[in-house]
Amino acid sequence: MKQLEVQFDEKGLVPAIIQDYKTGEVLMLAYMNEESLNKTIETKRTWFYSRSRQELWQKGATSGNDQNVKQLSYDCDEDALLIQVEQVGAACHTGEKSCFYREVDLGESTPFNRSVIDDLYSAIEERKTNRKEGSYTNYLFDEGVDKILKKISEESGEILIGAKNDDDENLAMEIADLTYHLLVLMVEKEMSVEQVKEVLTKRMKGE
Amino acid sequence: MKQLEVQFDEKGLVPAIIQDYKTGEVLMLAYMNEESLNKTIETKRTWFYSRSRQELWQKGATSGNDQNVKQLSYDCDEDALLIQVEQVGAACHTGEKSCFYREVDLGESTPFNRSVIDDLYSAIEERKTNRKEGSYTNYLFDEGVDKILKKISEESGEILIGAKNDDDENLAMEIADLTYHLLVLMVEKEMSVEQVKEVLTKRMKGE
Repeated sequence: MKQLEVQFDEKGLVPAIIQDYKTGEVLMLAYMNEESLNKTIETKRTWFYSRSRQELWQKGATSGNDQNVKQLSYDCDEDALLIQVEQVGAACHTGEKSCFYREVDLGESTPFNRSVIDDLYSAIEERKTNRKEGSYTNYLFDEGVDKILKKISEESGEILIGAKNDDDENLAMEIADLTYHLLVLMVEKEMSVEQVKEVLTKRMKGE
Repeated sequence: MKQLEVQFDEKGLVPAIIQDYKTGEVLMLAYMNEESLNKTIETKRTWFYSRSRQELWQKGATSGNDQNVKQLSYDCDEDALLIQVEQVGAACHTGEKSCFYREVDLGESTPFNRSVIDDLYSAIEERKTNRKEGSYTNYLFDEGVDKILKKISEESGEILIGAKNDDDENLAMEIADLTYHLLVLMVEKEMSVEQVKEVLTKRMKGE
């Protein structure tokens, strides 16, 4: 096991941020003492120290919602941990994916969705299972893979035209259109976003 | 201001996880008391309470590395905050983007890179500025936008063939190839990943 100089607080605890390693979603914040940190590193499952029950607990031991540890980092002061996990099921005891499911209204809309590609993939998948009248996505699935491929061909053609016209706003729309149709193809072929990211990751490391 | 029932600890503090709202990178963990939380909500800039100096401080006040608050969530126990920010410059006082820049070696490689699309975009951008002998990316930039567009057309054609051949492994590679060439086009056109995500986000909300 690697040397890891963690500064535990006066109660012998250090906060650990748990993050979904694929989507980047912050799932929970919990506390570790030295024993639970060591067990986490040894077992590659998260173990925490419950401040209310004053005991160690393994995440998922009763719920089955395991956290498989993929990466463990510590901060500049060595008094906080960041643990990237593969989350099985929900991280929160309420059944929500993340414990941070409640947002404070700051009075302005923030239209940007960081994980829009993953969310769009899920929405397309959902639409395939639960039909919606007049849905363009359903129309594509009904028509089948040939129609989806024709659209991919068409959208790439529009990217060529958009780029040649030097119209950035239009080009962004066309790239978005192509992205959407590629995601429809991937759902149709039961290919995950992760599968494509894995290929890109290997390429990046290879170069 | 919204009612927010935060459980401060016996020192009057609550931990706040700071996350980059665009990339999902966890930047730092710091503490807020009631006053700094209120100031954070009011000013939409992060304010913390320094446990060592026992005083309020505004992130970026001396360094200029402001954190503009985009979203504020709290967890199921109401004893931890998650704050999504637009980070100006580096979050860490060491000059690193994130305070969590040191990783513990867990003895197995985790080849998956969550933000590979953003990272690949940055790598392509970097390659455009700093040439590398024999780089395919440099070859594309040298040949110019027509060559990049020809490749986009070619790669979409290969997706059509891959999908018709029902070869999932090959199809994932072709989608990765197209993604890479689209990113090269975007760098060439100085279009950010966020610009495309913003279009997709608006579409998702509209539907």
